[in-house]
Amino acid sequence: MSNVSKFQEKFIKRREELSSLLCIGLDPEWEKLPFSSLKSETPLFHFSKEIVEATHTYATSWKPNVAFFERFGSKGFKEFELYVELCKTVCPEVPIIADAKRGDLANTSKEYAKYYFETLGVDALTVNAYMGRDTLLPYLDAGGYIFILCLTSNPSSSDLQKLVLKKNNEFLYEEMSDFAAKLGEEYPGQVGIVVGGTHPAELKKIRNRHPDLFFLIPGYGAQGASLEEIYWASGKNSIINSSRGVTLLSREDGFSRLAKEKALEIQTQMNHLFH
Amino acid sequence: MSNVSKFQEKFIKRREELSSLLCIGLDPEWEKLPFSSLKSETPLFHFSKEIVEATHTYATSWKPNVAFFERFGSKGFKEFELYVELCKTVCPEVPIIADAKRGDLANTSKEYAKYYFETLGVDALTVNAYMGRDTLLPYLDAGGYIFILCLTSNPSSSDLQKLVLKKNNEFLYEEMSDFAAKLGEEYPGQVGIVVGGTHPAELKKIRNRHPDLFFLIPGYGAQGASLEEIYWASGKNSIINSSRGVTLLSREDGFSRLAKEKALEIQTQMNHLFH
Repeated sequence: MSNVSKFQEKFIKRREELSSLLCIGLDPEWEKLPFSSLKSETPLFHFSKEIVEATHTYATSWKPNVAFFERFGSKGFKEFELYVELCKTVCPEVPIIADAKRGDLANTSKEYAKYYFETLGVDALTVNAYMGRDTLLPYLDAGGYIFILCLTSNPSSSDLQKLVLKKNNEFLYEEMSDFAAKLGEEYPGQVGIVVGGTHPAELKKIRNRHPDLFFLIPGYGAQGASLEEIYWASGKNSIINSSRGVTLLSREDGFSRLAKEKALEIQTQMNHLFH
Repeated sequence: MSNVSKFQEKFIKRREELSSLLCIGLDPEWEKLPFSSLKSETPLFHFSKEIVEATHTYATSWKPNVAFFERFGSKGFKEFELYVELCKTVCPEVPIIADAKRGDLANTSKEYAKYYFETLGVDALTVNAYMGRDTLLPYLDAGGYIFILCLTSNPSSSDLQKLVLKKNNEFLYEEMSDFAAKLGEEYPGQVGIVVGGTHPAELKKIRNRHPDLFFLIPGYGAQGASLEEIYWASGKNSIINSSRGVTLLSREDGFSRLAKEKALEIQTQMNHLFH
């Protein structure tokens, strides 16, 4: 591997400084964008910029979902690139997790690795491991940090993830967590998993299985999981994401002030849990 | 659903006209691009254009892999958009399968569906179903055709795809094929699967299980599978892809002539199998 991922180091430093686990997700869904952003030439970036500037002091990490930018193809990607550049300028200490859920053949994953880790220089990427180990190595060999989808937060996550395996009577998502942990032994400090906060019992179970693994936990906030429940189930090696629940509270002017207030409220709540 | 997918209809028409199943994959890997393309301002598009113009009379479909464009972010996507536009102008009768392997939450898949099916207007998209049914519905509701990853062509495909399930002693990839077929009953003519040609025995097994399902079959050509073996295992509802084995035969001037000759050679071989 070319160099050890800096994601974990940056996140831990930030977590200790803020006594918080709040990752601010950026899902600039066109139909929900503030009216002032819609008037801009670069609406996705306008929205992102307002959010970054208003909330960066409360973020232990950022999680932009690439789909909302890719919706507009080349123009959308341009705005995504502006957003990443802005984050690196305004708050270089806050790690960026590109939520792209990429997964392809090895020679193809290499292309994604080049874009996300070399060109953009984000700190982590969410990936889909259905195609197996050789499709993940390019990200790791590029020195990047990956979060492998394990148990996702959506209602249909059980369709395949909760299939029971013959060899040990366990669920596929449990196998996936072991698969990720094993890869993480070979690439220390470079592999985590995604576990939806909408499944607190399962979250606790996976945590017991892998006490030290880093979990990226969506599903808090708009999707309904409680902060306390997630924290007690999963502990401090957790990146707890809220997207809509922080950033899309209003379409009117002042939306970024509301985002700031909400981020502060969550941080205060986190601080109580931490101490 | 808004309108029935046209992919299957277009592909069948083309298959019958050419007596062929050849899908030409477009993987513009930077390190392998012809020297003349590298001199262009838009190297990925330059390469793609040469290939499209030289080989379109032999293609029953195109399969560009988005990763090779995404490697260059906004600039790469611009070239991808030019490529799709060109295909639709030069040979509107040849369906386009965007090989993107996308998969995300429902509200996020909606964004991908908008870009690929509405804005670009490609005919089909490869998708990853690990997250379950609700993450696939946006593609189908947009009237698009999806190929669900089932058994992929890479060496590590067995890591997860060949896990044995408790309920029926079958492999995960068999379950995935049933999952896809069931979805295809609800959305007729809109769902196929990806099965690597590098597994001819398994290909035959899945074909016996789903006689009418459309299979997108990579792994022919550079990855080593034989055309006859694939054809006899899977029959005519197969889209057999070759990328590097047709398009990247030389980096020198004349690469597109070589591509044309290779495409003709494959078509001739296909014609013998058909009759």
